[in-house]
Amino acid sequence: MKPDSHRYCVIMCGGIGSRFWPYSRANMPKQFIDFLGTGRSLLQMCFDRIKPLVPEKNVIVVTNSIYAPIVKEQLPELDEEHILLEPCRRNTAPCIAWAAHHIYARDPKASMIVTPSDHLITNEAEFAKKVKRGFEFVEANEALLTLGIQPTRPETGYGYIQIGEEVEPGILKVKTFTEKPDIELARVFVDSGEFFWNSGIFLWKADTIINAFHAYAPDLEREFERGADAFATPQEMEFINEHFPSCPSISVDFAIMEKASNVFVECVNFGWSDLGTWSVLYDNSPKNKDANVTRNCNLLAYESTGNIFAVRNQKLVVVSGLHDYIVADSGDVLLICPKSEEQRIKQIVNDVQAKFDDKFL
Amino acid sequence: MKPDSHRYCVIMCGGIGSRFWPYSRANMPKQFIDFLGTGRSLLQMCFDRIKPLVPEKNVIVVTNSIYAPIVKEQLPELDEEHILLEPCRRNTAPCIAWAAHHIYARDPKASMIVTPSDHLITNEAEFAKKVKRGFEFVEANEALLTLGIQPTRPETGYGYIQIGEEVEPGILKVKTFTEKPDIELARVFVDSGEFFWNSGIFLWKADTIINAFHAYAPDLEREFERGADAFATPQEMEFINEHFPSCPSISVDFAIMEKASNVFVECVNFGWSDLGTWSVLYDNSPKNKDANVTRNCNLLAYESTGNIFAVRNQKLVVVSGLHDYIVADSGDVLLICPKSEEQRIKQIVNDVQAKFDDKFL
Repeated sequence: MKPDSHRYCVIMCGGIGSRFWPYSRANMPKQFIDFLGTGRSLLQMCFDRIKPLVPEKNVIVVTNSIYAPIVKEQLPELDEEHILLEPCRRNTAPCIAWAAHHIYARDPKASMIVTPSDHLITNEAEFAKKVKRGFEFVEANEALLTLGIQPTRPETGYGYIQIGEEVEPGILKVKTFTEKPDIELARVFVDSGEFFWNSGIFLWKADTIINAFHAYAPDLEREFERGADAFATPQEMEFINEHFPSCPSISVDFAIMEKASNVFVECVNFGWSDLGTWSVLYDNSPKNKDANVTRNCNLLAYESTGNIFAVRNQKLVVVSGLHDYIVADSGDVLLICPKSEEQRIKQIVNDVQAKFDDKFL
Repeated sequence: MKPDSHRYCVIMCGGIGSRFWPYSRANMPKQFIDFLGTGRSLLQMCFDRIKPLVPEKNVIVVTNSIYAPIVKEQLPELDEEHILLEPCRRNTAPCIAWAAHHIYARDPKASMIVTPSDHLITNEAEFAKKVKRGFEFVEANEALLTLGIQPTRPETGYGYIQIGEEVEPGILKVKTFTEKPDIELARVFVDSGEFFWNSGIFLWKADTIINAFHAYAPDLEREFERGADAFATPQEMEFINEHFPSCPSISVDFAIMEKASNVFVECVNFGWSDLGTWSVLYDNSPKNKDANVTRNCNLLAYESTGNIFAVRNQKLVVVSGLHDYIVADSGDVLLICPKSEEQRIKQIVNDVQAKFDDKFL
């Protein structure tokens, strides 16, 4: 069955993946890397997952302009006009507002799924089923729908969604959004059965989200309304290059989802991970007999266990007496850091920038 | 004062430096690397040290034929005919026998110093003084002279020379050569005051060492005698390429020094190290405030001490929670190994060859 011609997908692809520095670099961030060793980048895996669900010409990739060549190379089937190039980084709200206006200009009846490009989903059949169900719901209702992931552990790295009343089977009102909790609160959340992980995957009609921007982020919406005649025309980029930089840098969760009253959650369980940390990557990767994980690496390990080696070009890594470290090499940068201290990497990247400017970012 | 025109120097430069793999690689071994971060390779430092002591045209470099381009690049002042290219590796005795015949053919009155290319000498004025004294001694006597280093610690990695009767101030008969001792024996040696480190630096007249080969290594000497007419002529390389491979692989210590009766030692103390192990390199290198040593490296270290980082091209190395490791990177190979386990590197190199053939050697 051909996918509904009014259904669109927006793949958000502008992140810089600094938590995986230096394996992920500003000029080749996480979503463009064969992060899981499958032979496909995370962006390509995302595209492959979405392709059966919306017409191919309805897939939009929003990315930073500097990544245009990589996106074109990795997704040659994508028309160039379906790559929206942000002139600067402004978080998810401006990205989604632009994409919604672009899609609405192409098709006022459009519904759309918005998804990050750098997540892992292991059960694609279940994903497809839930997305179809979500499309049906948002097409029949003026609803902002988010996919809530059944939590499997008291994860402190994710935001949580508290569920309210069930309005249709598997679809519930959202009671609250909660930022990353501490471990005790996370345990309470998971035990209660009332909280789901916020996946950052959304569905809505283009006009529903535009209305929401109008109501809850009017300053932002005003920037885009000025360009109503430009979207999906040859003038679009000129308009964006002029006006996008004026947008506030704000997330769609904060700008819309936490404020709107028509927010719903579809509870899902399709083997999701945001692949947001080295530990998560380690946990989601096949291990060799010493519980080491390798990426693009020839490994010779002596009394070394529990490490993750993420390098390039099948580099030979020989390691002796090393346990539970991250070893990441991008050619001109080598990082050796205990897995338990990966939260330090953000600070490290700041220190590197302070000391060497952008050279090694 | 111009150096004596009959004085020659033979720099032995054919080693593969496998103990420093992968910082030292088969295609770019230790002697060709700016090993101490001085801006000059060890070979260049050796050449600089020798230059005031013998006429420049009397400096001979013996190396493996595969290193010819590197030697020419690093020592552009050297005439091509003064680079002797071994067609294969045969340890020091054949190397020295060839060099002696080559020099004798150029100058039957020649005296010569033979020196490894990859050692460290910190007090060059003292070195110069001792070498001049050594030349005078061997020119006046039919003597095989070795430089014995005043030991500063019970080192188990070196061979020792036991001294006998003093024949001239600072020059003594050699009683015995001793292989690398265990630590207890090394302590006894050092405490006795009778033992000096075998530096592998020798002085003699060309005809004295040729006579010694004739007496103590007649099979080896016979190979070279056949070519008497070829040395220092355009036919030399053809002769060598045909006959050198037939030579036994044997050290000059074993072939000559341990057998001859006219062996003497000049006791010296000029800040010598053979730079034979990572620990020795670490000990001989300036440290940063965390006692880390770097080579061609931008280092950002967090709670990391006592490491040695030997990389290339001013790579950025960021390290957290690592103590007393060797981190060596040659581009396509990364080694991470505790300093205390460096004796394992030899096995590692064997394992790498077994698994990957010569690709990473």
